[in-house]
Amino acid sequence: MAVNPVDYAARILEGSHRAAARLISWLEDEDERAYECMRMLYPHTGRAYVVGITGSPGAGKSTLTNALTRVIRKNGLKVGIVAVDPSSPFTGGALLGDRVRMSELAEDPDVYIRSMATRGFLGGMAKAAGEVVKVLDALGKDVILIETVGVGQDEVDIVEVADTTCVVMVPGLGDAIQSLKAGIMEIADVFVVNKADHVGADMLCAEICARVEMDVQLRDRGWVAPVNRAVAVEGVGLEELWLSIESHRKYLLDSGKFYEKRRERVSREALRMIHGDLFRVVREQLERSGRLEAAVEELMSKKLDPYSLMRDIVTEWLSSSRCK
Amino acid sequence: MAVNPVDYAARILEGSHRAAARLISWLEDEDERAYECMRMLYPHTGRAYVVGITGSPGAGKSTLTNALTRVIRKNGLKVGIVAVDPSSPFTGGALLGDRVRMSELAEDPDVYIRSMATRGFLGGMAKAAGEVVKVLDALGKDVILIETVGVGQDEVDIVEVADTTCVVMVPGLGDAIQSLKAGIMEIADVFVVNKADHVGADMLCAEICARVEMDVQLRDRGWVAPVNRAVAVEGVGLEELWLSIESHRKYLLDSGKFYEKRRERVSREALRMIHGDLFRVVREQLERSGRLEAAVEELMSKKLDPYSLMRDIVTEWLSSSRCK
Repeated sequence: MAVNPVDYAARILEGSHRAAARLISWLEDEDERAYECMRMLYPHTGRAYVVGITGSPGAGKSTLTNALTRVIRKNGLKVGIVAVDPSSPFTGGALLGDRVRMSELAEDPDVYIRSMATRGFLGGMAKAAGEVVKVLDALGKDVILIETVGVGQDEVDIVEVADTTCVVMVPGLGDAIQSLKAGIMEIADVFVVNKADHVGADMLCAEICARVEMDVQLRDRGWVAPVNRAVAVEGVGLEELWLSIESHRKYLLDSGKFYEKRRERVSREALRMIHGDLFRVVREQLERSGRLEAAVEELMSKKLDPYSLMRDIVTEWLSSSRCK
Repeated sequence: MAVNPVDYAARILEGSHRAAARLISWLEDEDERAYECMRMLYPHTGRAYVVGITGSPGAGKSTLTNALTRVIRKNGLKVGIVAVDPSSPFTGGALLGDRVRMSELAEDPDVYIRSMATRGFLGGMAKAAGEVVKVLDALGKDVILIETVGVGQDEVDIVEVADTTCVVMVPGLGDAIQSLKAGIMEIADVFVVNKADHVGADMLCAEICARVEMDVQLRDRGWVAPVNRAVAVEGVGLEELWLSIESHRKYLLDSGKFYEKRRERVSREALRMIHGDLFRVVREQLERSGRLEAAVEELMSKKLDPYSLMRDIVTEWLSSSRCK
């Protein structure tokens, strides 16, 4: 077994799942070796196509992800799956079930599945998911599926890592129309009505189509989000879903938006990293110098307010950087 | 109507809901005036008792919050409610219903309700909720209830703003046992089994009690989280819940943990503010200097990797701050 980051990078580029798993653990642990390894892998990233799969809890995203994976595999493409759990005490328990459920796919050597439930990741889950995507990309996966529960800002951020975002809805959850009102149009490139054999599926499809129509009129976008029907548990409608995703990919490439989106992502990621690291440094310095401790005492006794403290500290950093 | 921050601060200290609403809007908009106003209010904060109410979607948190508010009002205390929505496209729609539902309480001049659905708040929802709590505190509310869906890191952070955290569960959601496994014990000071007249309530109570018992043995905490039963929709069990909250408050005060918790919160809040402001400043500087733009080009062409970029920029900041 390789022991240093250089060896790990080489083994990941050869397709070693074990080496990838180790690197991801390093990333989760903020281990120094992760950065060395990532630095070496970076030039080999950017090739994989990234698909986000999001939707309400209970929409059957995991089943859909698995079924879609089988279709992609039939097309001869290698698949990486990143299952992001919002790492909440209320939902954390679902992961174990996912892992068991995914064991069938896990036997396919060209499928790599990674569940992420880490909380408190420096820079948030979006940064973490972005890093894992890079590892799977370097690992040689052609398509990377990011499955995430569509709740909270964190998960919306994760979607930003994707080239194509599929929003999964199901009839009967009751929140479908609400969701459509509340800004879902902005993130959906492809809609999937899962459990399309259930009562209410036709109406849900019609409602989504009506909203898409309205949205197109309002915003005159070049891409009209298709509404797919699927019964993921029976493997129905997945080929069509994959075709929709491929169409969106073609649209992005032809329109030049693919490059634009990737560029924005790279910019956002860089900022996020710089921010995370800078804050770590500032915090360490504030703690080491006793400055934070002293300030907290003053804040507690109301001799100081946090707004003035914030101004003071940031101004100090700013003025010191001007003396260059 | 007052026009400057000084006037607004004075009016908030006199109890004006309108002035408070304006200030909160300023906070949401990152308006400069907010900071001036908050600075003036800060010495008048820290008096209110803050109660977090969290739990799975569908647990009846809103109804419980309303019913609890009535009990607290009967005790002659003024109540502020902060209803935090994770501002997701999937759940954002729920807010309107909440507002309508809460209209009964809204007629009580000693109750102030604020829904928060803002996304992208600099520094996250936890910072935002913390600020709103300060406003309601300065407004003279005795008890502030923060109602939040317990999904995602953001919501767990919000709970950190609370002195006492109530975790609401209901029979039949199926995720109760999972939740108990997944770290909920760490955040719950008081459990509430809502819809306690439903099938499965007894078993759920028994399970929670067993877990609490195990937890006490494991960690030997000074406080044993009580398990309350309630039927919020009929106003049953709310007096007992309020007594549990009061007991926890007394425990915190007697044990010295109240001060300790508040101190940690102040420290965390200060760091969070510095974090947010630093990010704004760094981003502005990187954008203004064209440094970010140039770096992104190099990142896109893989001439540079983001890890080296991060190191370079943070090192520049560090070395420049040493020249003081």
